[in-house]
Amino acid sequence: MTVPPDTAATTAAAPASDAYAPTDRTVPTRARERASYDRALVHSIIDGAYVCHLGFVRDGAPVVLPTLHGRLGERLYVHGSTGSRPLRMAGQPEQPEQPDPGLAVCLTVTHVDGLVLARSAFHHSLNYRSVVVHGTAHQVTDLDEKRTALDTLVDHAIPGRSQDSRPANAKEVAATAILRLDLDEVSAKVRTGGPSNDLEDQELPHWTGVIPVVRGYGTPIPADDLAPGIELPDYLKTL
Amino acid sequence: MTVPPDTAATTAAAPASDAYAPTDRTVPTRARERASYDRALVHSIIDGAYVCHLGFVRDGAPVVLPTLHGRLGERLYVHGSTGSRPLRMAGQPEQPEQPDPGLAVCLTVTHVDGLVLARSAFHHSLNYRSVVVHGTAHQVTDLDEKRTALDTLVDHAIPGRSQDSRPANAKEVAATAILRLDLDEVSAKVRTGGPSNDLEDQELPHWTGVIPVVRGYGTPIPADDLAPGIELPDYLKTL
Repeated sequence: MTVPPDTAATTAAAPASDAYAPTDRTVPTRARERASYDRALVHSIIDGAYVCHLGFVRDGAPVVLPTLHGRLGERLYVHGSTGSRPLRMAGQPEQPEQPDPGLAVCLTVTHVDGLVLARSAFHHSLNYRSVVVHGTAHQVTDLDEKRTALDTLVDHAIPGRSQDSRPANAKEVAATAILRLDLDEVSAKVRTGGPSNDLEDQELPHWTGVIPVVRGYGTPIPADDLAPGIELPDYLKTL
Repeated sequence: MTVPPDTAATTAAAPASDAYAPTDRTVPTRARERASYDRALVHSIIDGAYVCHLGFVRDGAPVVLPTLHGRLGERLYVHGSTGSRPLRMAGQPEQPEQPDPGLAVCLTVTHVDGLVLARSAFHHSLNYRSVVVHGTAHQVTDLDEKRTALDTLVDHAIPGRSQDSRPANAKEVAATAILRLDLDEVSAKVRTGGPSNDLEDQELPHWTGVIPVVRGYGTPIPADDLAPGIELPDYLKTL
């Protein structure tokens, strides 16, 4: 089986009605043919990742932390209890009567799909799918929304799991910091296909092609105290 | 096979002489027992990842982009041709006679190693290994260093590959933007082991344990124009 050269351009086209509107921040200055604003593509990239990388500014300097996320329609919920005060406090006004200022964030999700080996060192690349979300994150304070967000986070990683675990009690809900970030200023970037070899390198003796990178799962490891007779549920068998 | 509850603490200890010095920015305010400054651990996390997430500040707002990296001792090289002008220009003074100001960045690398299923929704977690590097990135302008950096990037993804591909020519070296970031203000965070179930949840009927998440490789896909007789090299067979 062989693949044609970079076919990313074919994924970039999308009906405008089902796409995010590009902005100055979401139009790349290079490799524009890899950019996409397609809503379904963006959702699939976000939904398929176990972690996102959340960036914010602290004391004028950038901070990027990995954290858990989940999507509910056009809204992302992000686990804010990462040990970083700005995240836990995002959107909390200094005085309760002040409006919620929010926290400027950039949330990025990336999948590596393949190692792209060209004949030249220069044309080596990765196949990948990424999404970048710019926006303002707000602390979720409403308790019902917080419960919904917690279920969304759990079901994001393991669909169906929130129905097969003890729901958070009031103390646990209070102990969890959750941020809300709406999908509005969003872009995807995708590279697929084979290497972009230069014609003048064609006679070189180096192997060239793509090594697919895939995610897999190992054998489930039961907890020490799992009672005999509790079998692995179906939704975990089909991961 | 079963695993004990969160054993991250056992990985955090390291001889001070072989560790990065903690700073205000690299000591987490929560889950401190998961933090580590061990040099060998940091290196292994960085070396095992195909992409990093690079954060910087543009017009006062955070930007996080996935990009390629490679490590040479205590120095990281990062591919800066991501379509973002600040990265391509990092450290370029506005006037040639001015000193190189650099670009404040935060570079983060994360591996997801397992889904941690507790009996309660609240205690669900991921096993992961991450590294956060704070520092100032500088554009690599020296041509010899740039060639070294390009080889480092290629060999990072596929060890040995720089020796089995055509080296970059002058035009290609000129066309590539590379950033240098020294490993100085660095921390790792690691979660391993089983779920932290509450004792009072012990009788609940939910399966609990860890689903390992692993990286795998698919069957290599030769490029369209790979000449017959060029076999897959050994360093790709053993990935």
